[in-house]
Amino acid sequence: MDFQDCFPIWNKLNAFQQNRIRGSLIARDVKKGAIIHNGNMGCTGLLLVKSGQLRAYILSPEGREITIYRLFDMDMCLLSASCMMRSIQFEVTIEAEKDSALWVIPAETYKSVMEESAAAANYTNELMAARFSDVMWLLEQIMWKSMDKRVAGFLLEESAIEGRGELKITHEIIANHLGSHREVITRMLRYFQNEGIVKLSRGMVTILDKNKLRELQNA
Amino acid sequence: MDFQDCFPIWNKLNAFQQNRIRGSLIARDVKKGAIIHNGNMGCTGLLLVKSGQLRAYILSPEGREITIYRLFDMDMCLLSASCMMRSIQFEVTIEAEKDSALWVIPAETYKSVMEESAAAANYTNELMAARFSDVMWLLEQIMWKSMDKRVAGFLLEESAIEGRGELKITHEIIANHLGSHREVITRMLRYFQNEGIVKLSRGMVTILDKNKLRELQNA
Repeated sequence: MDFQDCFPIWNKLNAFQQNRIRGSLIARDVKKGAIIHNGNMGCTGLLLVKSGQLRAYILSPEGREITIYRLFDMDMCLLSASCMMRSIQFEVTIEAEKDSALWVIPAETYKSVMEESAAAANYTNELMAARFSDVMWLLEQIMWKSMDKRVAGFLLEESAIEGRGELKITHEIIANHLGSHREVITRMLRYFQNEGIVKLSRGMVTILDKNKLRELQNA
Repeated sequence: MDFQDCFPIWNKLNAFQQNRIRGSLIARDVKKGAIIHNGNMGCTGLLLVKSGQLRAYILSPEGREITIYRLFDMDMCLLSASCMMRSIQFEVTIEAEKDSALWVIPAETYKSVMEESAAAANYTNELMAARFSDVMWLLEQIMWKSMDKRVAGFLLEESAIEGRGELKITHEIIANHLGSHREVITRMLRYFQNEGIVKLSRGMVTILDKNKLRELQNA
């Protein structure tokens, strides 16, 4: 699979622009758990996920986390190149959730193409709008949904990503995704277990009743 | 003051694009309290604030509100034209907080210019990045800051906007800005009053000790 097959506006760029990107493109393999970008790293560049799974999150001054979006095969990460735009005034951390293969377009290359090409600039707009929509969705969840519904939604999402009901995940990690505390998540999962919705074991949450979880999420 | 003096990339557009915008531009005066845009109205178009003050907020299914950003003189509102971009998948409501004079660029006009002009598309990127940054700031406030700090910050912001310490504002309106309940805000303001930070009277919050408010906000 070539880069150009995965980059949706490749054919709308002229030969100079295509060469500029091809000439500066970097292929990069990262291990599960690697931090690919954070505020201290400067400008990592645009990331295109060839395969694997990335997570973008923000950190509180005390080190609490909340996941703001995730990226899967063929997704593009714009915020790792936030230096390109002076109006982006926040920092995210990007972590590999699974072993991943990435393409990196250096920020200065992408920026120079975007300044010339309306197609590239409009594509970038759509990318930013998609991430903006993810964050608005999250904001609505936090503001209007109680934690039991959010935990139910998270377990369903994880189960859809992994394609199975046995989730290898700790209470701490769930708390980090949802911006909560481990104790809160443990209490919630124990309640779910008492209701026969999940079974808990060391480092594992097994979904027993997906329908009840869905009911809970949408209640 | 002409439109072209307020539209930063006017000189980067060609004569055809300038004429297209000039020919479809609508001047509009709105009264304080008017709803200028919401999800049911379809595509209102891009708004440029000539003078006045607008507020963008989201609504819960139960009718609770939270302010996501505000717009002042010369600010541009992109999300009232969210139909332009298919990746924007959320709805905001735009309300006039003061009597305002606006210019409206119809969404289809702006979209056609943006598709041709890299300058217009990159300008739009910066607008979206600025609003995205506002929402990320809000998310961090909600996640990591307690309500007393957020109320202190809101009173300081209002006082800066109005240029005085006597704020004509109800507890209900403060709650709507912050996504909280009136009762919570009333309790908080009474606590502030007991500490000698504010004085409460009917429909009015008077700031007595700005320094204490700042200390509280940054604590």
